[in-house]
Amino acid sequence: MQQLKQQVFEANMDLPRYGLVTFTWGNVSAIDRQRGLVVIKPSGIAYESMTVDDMSVVDLQGHVVEGRWRPSSDTATHLALYRRYPDLGGVVHTHSTHATAWAQAGLAIPALGTTHADYFFGDIPCTRALSAQEVDEAYELNTGQVIIEALGEANPLHTPGIVVYQHGPFAWGKDAHEAVHNAVVMEEVARMAWIARGINPQLQPIDSWLMNKHFQRKHGPNAYYGQK
Amino acid sequence: MQQLKQQVFEANMDLPRYGLVTFTWGNVSAIDRQRGLVVIKPSGIAYESMTVDDMSVVDLQGHVVEGRWRPSSDTATHLALYRRYPDLGGVVHTHSTHATAWAQAGLAIPALGTTHADYFFGDIPCTRALSAQEVDEAYELNTGQVIIEALGEANPLHTPGIVVYQHGPFAWGKDAHEAVHNAVVMEEVARMAWIARGINPQLQPIDSWLMNKHFQRKHGPNAYYGQK
Amino acid sequence: MQQLKQQVFEANMDLPRYGLVTFTWGNVSAIDRQRGLVVIKPSGIAYESMTVDDMSVVDLQGHVVEGRWRPSSDTATHLALYRRYPDLGGVVHTHSTHATAWAQAGLAIPALGTTHADYFFGDIPCTRALSAQEVDEAYELNTGQVIIEALGEANPLHTPGIVVYQHGPFAWGKDAHEAVHNAVVMEEVARMAWIARGINPQLQPIDSWLMNKHFQRKHGPNAYYGQK
Amino acid sequence: MQQLKQQVFEANMDLPRYGLVTFTWGNVSAIDRQRGLVVIKPSGIAYESMTVDDMSVVDLQGHVVEGRWRPSSDTATHLALYRRYPDLGGVVHTHSTHATAWAQAGLAIPALGTTHADYFFGDIPCTRALSAQEVDEAYELNTGQVIIEALGEANPLHTPGIVVYQHGPFAWGKDAHEAVHNAVVMEEVARMAWIARGINPQLQPIDSWLMNKHFQRKHGPNAYYGQK
Repeated sequence: MQQLKQQVFEANMDLPRYGLVTFTWGNVSAIDRQRGLVVIKPSGIAYESMTVDDMSVVDLQGHVVEGRWRPSSDTATHLALYRRYPDLGGVVHTHSTHATAWAQAGLAIPALGTTHADYFFGDIPCTRALSAQEVDEAYELNTGQVIIEALGEANPLHTPGIVVYQHGPFAWGKDAHEAVHNAVVMEEVARMAWIARGINPQLQPIDSWLMNKHFQRKHGPNAYYGQK
Repeated sequence: MQQLKQQVFEANMDLPRYGLVTFTWGNVSAIDRQRGLVVIKPSGIAYESMTVDDMSVVDLQGHVVEGRWRPSSDTATHLALYRRYPDLGGVVHTHSTHATAWAQAGLAIPALGTTHADYFFGDIPCTRALSAQEVDEAYELNTGQVIIEALGEANPLHTPGIVVYQHGPFAWGKDAHEAVHNAVVMEEVARMAWIARGINPQLQPIDSWLMNKHFQRKHGPNAYYGQK
Repeated sequence: MQQLKQQVFEANMDLPRYGLVTFTWGNVSAIDRQRGLVVIKPSGIAYESMTVDDMSVVDLQGHVVEGRWRPSSDTATHLALYRRYPDLGGVVHTHSTHATAWAQAGLAIPALGTTHADYFFGDIPCTRALSAQEVDEAYELNTGQVIIEALGEANPLHTPGIVVYQHGPFAWGKDAHEAVHNAVVMEEVARMAWIARGINPQLQPIDSWLMNKHFQRKHGPNAYYGQK
Repeated sequence: MQQLKQQVFEANMDLPRYGLVTFTWGNVSAIDRQRGLVVIKPSGIAYESMTVDDMSVVDLQGHVVEGRWRPSSDTATHLALYRRYPDLGGVVHTHSTHATAWAQAGLAIPALGTTHADYFFGDIPCTRALSAQEVDEAYELNTGQVIIEALGEANPLHTPGIVVYQHGPFAWGKDAHEAVHNAVVMEEVARMAWIARGINPQLQPIDSWLMNKHFQRKHGPNAYYGQK
């Protein structure tokens, strides 16, 4: 558990390092699937003073099993994703500028180029709005539910992130480090897509064969990018 | 008083640290309500060489009671806000890029997402223009007056900032530190709103129930964000 | 002369520090009016390795009187401005991003707010295009001429900068330090004006009384900004 | 060979220093024309931990002749350019934000000002799309082919870069250092052109005589920029 807490701590500290968070506006978690326990950032704690021992540990129903602080207010969203998708090892939420702007615009981040296709197979969806009742009854849990609804039949590791309507981005991956990596990519492709559409409002989505090629050369069975 | 001067000094030094000011284009103040004295940055002093002993102390009518320098040229605006709103402990003025752009555009910064709603309940208003007479007779005092006019019946701690038409942002809070915090938030939501409207000119304001939820989970009687 | 060389050296080194230049795309000069000599950055020398002894010294006709390097290729433009305006003590040229974008757009940077009016009285003009003949016969000298033509009857210290059509910004001041200061302001107001017009294409120029007030409170006979 | 490996290593390390790459999204190569060998970054290796000994060496047909790692997945594109253009000494590929946005927009980066003309003689072309067959059969090689096709009869040292449709920028030069220099320029002029067209959608391309002047004063037989 100490090792996972260290990983989650380091992944949280990567958020300000990559410019993804202002103040405490972000949180990373990771799961120990064998024990069914999730390590997550505590709520509202400043990055500058946070240590590995501040991490919270909760079970998959959200009961705190370790840690001196209240866990992130977004914990129920993270847990909904872990319960639904057995392949997820890490989840991250931020209010990074450009991805949040797409969330506020209420639009999917369109797949426009190979930078996007190297990590995301197709558009990065935007969820539907939560109803007043959904917000009122179980806001953070239902945020997880609309993410799951928007992903539909997609493989979550082929669509490793989403924007929640009028809120901001969530991303995930095989572990906490990969989740943060995908959050950095989402912010960068969100920025590129904003600029590209500003330059040419009539631009085309990426050609399907080019998208396939880039995604497969990194993630397919015959991947040849990198040293693996 | 020394403690308040230290707080105001540190809050002023946070302005360049957060990228909110170019040169000397900003000032922070705080009030000691018991004594009725306000500590404020001196006018036109460079941040690099400023020390805590450079802070100016004035009473609520603007008379200098301590300090070797002339107080900020915007002092009368700060004092108008302290006189009108007994809950304010700190006030800040900057020319931060994106909030100033909204001021130049002459438009309120619209509430478009949860990042905004975590701190501001509703739009961030833009004041009306000052008349030639108002500028001529008592410019800085009347700047305070149009801010008060634009806030109307709003709770200033629920609308902890405003943009002054063709000028720039003012923000405030329970103390100097919180005022600067809100100025950082205003700049970031101003930037996000610019980008979001560029992406989708037909976007909707944030759903009222989502705005309520986010503001209340941080600021309401049953707040559960953070460790308080 | 050594003192002026030191000032010009430091003012040049401020260009990368303020983010105004990429590579060697900028140059600052200053004049010793008594001797009629101008100190200027040498052409194409990298900022990282430049020292005070690399500065070039030329007379007002452009003859090199001291220095191991060829002076900036833009020297003739600087000299034209010094010859025409006896009040100028320093001149700077950069390709700073946003001011250059306005030059490429072929438009004056409009006076939209107090940030602008604190330094520039009215719009920052854009020169007319140089003709093929003007470019061919004496390009850098004629660049100075179209700047002078665009300024017309304006007091150059009240309009301490301009954008040259399809080229980029020139700024000036009472000395090299003030020239660079004005170049920083021009880049920042160029950025704000771009964003403000993106937010509201129908925005109004700054009210004349507000512009007068801000310019005069810093630069007028009864100025009360700062400690002077 | 050790010297060339050192140059290529340093040129690769310049990519994050100039803000041109996120993670491992870029690669630089250089050629030893006498031996017909190319040194290139290995695929997917992080910049933080990379050393000069990690560089890969391949011949012009792509056979690895030295190095412990698989060479960049884009190696075949680099080699196609070296084979076609005997004057090229270095090649670089990045996903820098603004140049990539133009690639996604599917448009040439227009020559709008002297910043552009100081390095690029005319627009920076955008390639045509690769067909499904071209992607399927030999993607990286055919990327080189569409670059060559888009350059047509242009002197590659007068058009030292291009954007590949829906992908991103490639740049080149007499050596690895100059290639990276041109990639920095391309990113900056891509950013300026985006902003300039946002300010004035009806702007004009740079006057031909001004473009000629700027390109020739740096690169022509009578160049007088710099100290050469």
